Amino acid sequence: MKSAEIETLIKHLGKLPGLGARSGKRAALHLLQKKEEQLKPLIAALQTALDTVENCDRCGNLDTKNNCSVCTDPRRDQSILCVVEQVADLWAMERSGAFSGLYHILGGHLSALDGIGPDQLTIHSLLQRLQQEPVQEIIVALNATVEGQATAHYLADQVENHPVLQPRIKDGTLRLTRLAHGVPVGGELDYMDDGTISTALKARRAL
Amino acid sequence: MKSAEIETLIKHLGKLPGLGARSGKRAALHLLQKKEEQLKPLIAALQTALDTVENCDRCGNLDTKNNCSVCTDPRRDQSILCVVEQVADLWAMERSGAFSGLYHILGGHLSALDGIGPDQLTIHSLLQRLQQEPVQEIIVALNATVEGQATAHYLADQVENHPVLQPRIKDGTLRLTRLAHGVPVGGELDYMDDGTISTALKARRAL
Repeated sequence: MKSAEIETLIKHLGKLPGLGARSGKRAALHLLQKKEEQLKPLIAALQTALDTVENCDRCGNLDTKNNCSVCTDPRRDQSILCVVEQVADLWAMERSGAFSGLYHILGGHLSALDGIGPDQLTIHSLLQRLQQEPVQEIIVALNATVEGQATAHYLADQVENHPVLQPRIKDGTLRLTRLAHGVPVGGELDYMDDGTISTALKARRAL
Repeated sequence: MKSAEIETLIKHLGKLPGLGARSGKRAALHLLQKKEEQLKPLIAALQTALDTVENCDRCGNLDTKNNCSVCTDPRRDQSILCVVEQVADLWAMERSGAFSGLYHILGGHLSALDGIGPDQLTIHSLLQRLQQEPVQEIIVALNATVEGQATAHYLADQVENHPVLQPRIKDGTLRLTRLAHGVPVGGELDYMDDGTISTALKARRAL
């Protein structure tokens, strides 16, 4: 009994991550009952984002500027490059406020099941950037998952065996690092999985 | 570090029921990474809904037609009027396929806390419809909540004491009914609250 236009709206809203068929219906009703306060501003915000936001050609970040505001900020340290999987990871790093270098967004992790090989990621453009830009340290900040770590190993392999980069790795002018793994701040041991505890134990530091 | 346009989009997506600040961010990223497949169709669906969908002047249903396709369907029984709180309730009734009369959407329930009195609901237009249309039965299908049932009592009071409708109630040409309350189909007694069990017990029927 619902008109086709409402069904279409429900279908598209239901595709958003976090929503499904049922909550898509709730969202559609909500918007249709608040056309002025919610529906119109949402359309405007979506249209503006569609028209103005794009991926930075250099690092892959989403921004209205290209190159993005991180890449073009002269205060940021050009010698440290942080490699992350997704834009969301870049936002998480920025939220922490603990990093002031540049980024490179890989676009995901290697996954044979999903058909994501090296060519589907931005590994090639990363290797190019490393040759063109004054990078001295690459922080591989991929997720601490099996796929993320496999991708990190592949990436390290590519850098360490690259004809141009290999000598720089050997003489120490280019360093490869990764985020520390261990118990998260505020974490309670009782709730940690075995992998985290044994990793934290192996990587223990002097007090 | 996120551009204002992205922040605005996240804010508006996060206002959708079922989403919050965090899932609004996920949804925004998802849409910005799938501009062609998801963002553009979503904008189109929202814009179409904004332009074409409106509340039926007669019953309050949302449709591209006004009066809506339920109200204008000649096969539907004009003598039974089902009063529901929201459009979602109308959709639920239609989904059941068990009702073929017309609807009247009240717009919610009485709630002193939220400042919703009789004038914020469509009680006045309901009383008008009852005088103008050939209605013989009013099914009060409000939610089985305290507020819904209080509203149902108020509604019955208004109909039974209305100068024009009172005689029709008395001579039986206009009937007021409500949905049965009891154990839902498929429900297990062990999981039912006390109110449902005692209601079902009081309203027991011959086997």
